[in-house]
Amino acid sequence: MHFTITATDPTSRARCATLELAHGAVETPVFMPCGSIGVVKACDAFDVDALGIEMIVANAYHLWLRPGLDVLREFGGVHKFMAWPRPVLTDSGGFQVFSLAKPGSITEDGVKFRSHIDGTEKLLTAELSLEIQNAIGSDIAMMFDECAPYPSTHEYVDQSVEMTLRWGRRSKAAHKNPDQALFGIIQGGIFPDLRDKSAQGTLDIGFDGYALGGLSVGEQRGDMLMAIETTEPLLPWDRPRYVMGVGTPLDIVDCVMRGIDIFDCVLPTRNARHGKLMTWQGTVKINNAGFATDHAPLDESCDCHTCRNYSRAYLHHLFRIKEAVGWRLLSLHNLRFYAVLMRRIKDAIRTGALPALRAELGPWSVRDEA
Amino acid sequence: MHFTITATDPTSRARCATLELAHGAVETPVFMPCGSIGVVKACDAFDVDALGIEMIVANAYHLWLRPGLDVLREFGGVHKFMAWPRPVLTDSGGFQVFSLAKPGSITEDGVKFRSHIDGTEKLLTAELSLEIQNAIGSDIAMMFDECAPYPSTHEYVDQSVEMTLRWGRRSKAAHKNPDQALFGIIQGGIFPDLRDKSAQGTLDIGFDGYALGGLSVGEQRGDMLMAIETTEPLLPWDRPRYVMGVGTPLDIVDCVMRGIDIFDCVLPTRNARHGKLMTWQGTVKINNAGFATDHAPLDESCDCHTCRNYSRAYLHHLFRIKEAVGWRLLSLHNLRFYAVLMRRIKDAIRTGALPALRAELGPWSVRDEA
Repeated sequence: MHFTITATDPTSRARCATLELAHGAVETPVFMPCGSIGVVKACDAFDVDALGIEMIVANAYHLWLRPGLDVLREFGGVHKFMAWPRPVLTDSGGFQVFSLAKPGSITEDGVKFRSHIDGTEKLLTAELSLEIQNAIGSDIAMMFDECAPYPSTHEYVDQSVEMTLRWGRRSKAAHKNPDQALFGIIQGGIFPDLRDKSAQGTLDIGFDGYALGGLSVGEQRGDMLMAIETTEPLLPWDRPRYVMGVGTPLDIVDCVMRGIDIFDCVLPTRNARHGKLMTWQGTVKINNAGFATDHAPLDESCDCHTCRNYSRAYLHHLFRIKEAVGWRLLSLHNLRFYAVLMRRIKDAIRTGALPALRAELGPWSVRDEA
Repeated sequence: MHFTITATDPTSRARCATLELAHGAVETPVFMPCGSIGVVKACDAFDVDALGIEMIVANAYHLWLRPGLDVLREFGGVHKFMAWPRPVLTDSGGFQVFSLAKPGSITEDGVKFRSHIDGTEKLLTAELSLEIQNAIGSDIAMMFDECAPYPSTHEYVDQSVEMTLRWGRRSKAAHKNPDQALFGIIQGGIFPDLRDKSAQGTLDIGFDGYALGGLSVGEQRGDMLMAIETTEPLLPWDRPRYVMGVGTPLDIVDCVMRGIDIFDCVLPTRNARHGKLMTWQGTVKINNAGFATDHAPLDESCDCHTCRNYSRAYLHHLFRIKEAVGWRLLSLHNLRFYAVLMRRIKDAIRTGALPALRAELGPWSVRDEA
């Protein structure tokens, strides 16, 4: 992995960079759509590529259960399996298994839980997570961490941070793939002292890049931004930074201004399936009865397949009849919105126009998008 | 409408023809995928066009309920609404409402039934069906007919044929659109005398083309072919003939050999959604556990997007996780299979190779495909 900063914003901590990975180079700031189970929902790999998406995020938990490690190994990883030639980052699976784990089943060893597919009891550990991510062959693997629930007590988060650091050391020890970068994850909830402790400990272990975890999990927006502002100055300038699970367009711009390079979120694809479409004038709810006879595209200014070829009325119809291709067409639009957003962010960093771009996102209330 | 026969098969009643319609020319024999509600399920109009599909069938009943006549009129018809520039044939909606009608609610006037969407009571008549089909702006409208259930008594079918002839006269009187062809429908179940009576009566009314209805509804395959053999010699050679709801690849070849030009069936798209894929070696069930690690495409000989780019293993995975884009990829393949089948049928008619093509479909058992 090579990370080369190519532009910086004099008014903020924002930067542009080239991130070279095993499956090609990515220009940051970059947004990764969710391809958790080896597919960006409702789209195929050619759809995603045509939108200008450079990288996707897949999930160790989901791919471990289906299609399973034997299949992934047979294909030499998820890229060939899903016909996606560009970079993939994998989450460790920790976030998913915590929601399935009963109280008391998170121990020093790892996390015991029951599969959401067949109910069988399983144990996910740092070593197994790295083994899965190796079988997936992702360009960037994530260390195995505990994402403490929000809200949690200072005492709980403190112990969680300590255990996560031990899991981080075990993750690094288990990581053997020279073609795969490994990122550390900084936890600590909304407690500045614990964010600091987690950051220092993670930096001491040493990773190719650093993620901020445990954000965008229900805390106040100001707390999220404060946690980033607290931690970011501690991070090496020449390594990529990733805020996991973020976010809305405004969240992304605000995080970019705070020095973050990499993002992922279910928002564009999940919103599309729920009929919520993102435009530069705000969110459009396609189920709105007023669209039943509307000849206009979703967004006059958008160049996606959906906006170039279909009316709001037809998309409204497809959504009402719960037609699978409606989910696809709406997902293509929202993903293209994010691809254009990231291109505009990069252009704005290079031209000093980031504050103006942020102001343009004014019509987006934060609640509006979630 | 112009119908020009361009080739005939010396060994059978098969013929090739050019069918010129308001939205362009179609080369027959032609297969129409179902686009009942203004969409070929799981595919968009560009997908369908790219497959070499020349014409689709939409449904007056479904489009009447959703999006409704106001929307269709606002768009000047279904073509612009769904961004499909090529010909569309519409079924009258009769077939759909019979299945929703209670006993006694089929009268001389029309069919009373309850909407499957909101339960409201509605009445569909010959006049209303033609009004709906006019709002849809289809290239070919179908007369309103009763498709008698199978099995029915001779007495029931006889009365049904008589009423259908009266509905046919009302349909022709209600049809005012010079850009839209109107086809008659010959019923009569599996009773040769009633097929004759229906054919003679329908020919007396006079239509642009003739359909054989009430077939492929549960009768024996031999009875279906016999009904076609009984009726076809009565039909004018210079008018297109359409067997509604047919069928499997072998059914289509057998009907082509009996002088039929136009076909429609849910089979390719419905089979795809059920994981049943059509290849020249027979049906492939994608859920088969043996495919979990299979690198091969569904069909080595197929040039569709799905076969050119994805493995059986990945399609197996998408089907198992019930992913919408899996339905799309599988539908693209089955639709391409039908498009290639029709091209091969046309080539075979021109070169006298229809019997050889029929023999090649030997691996398809009739049961296999349904």
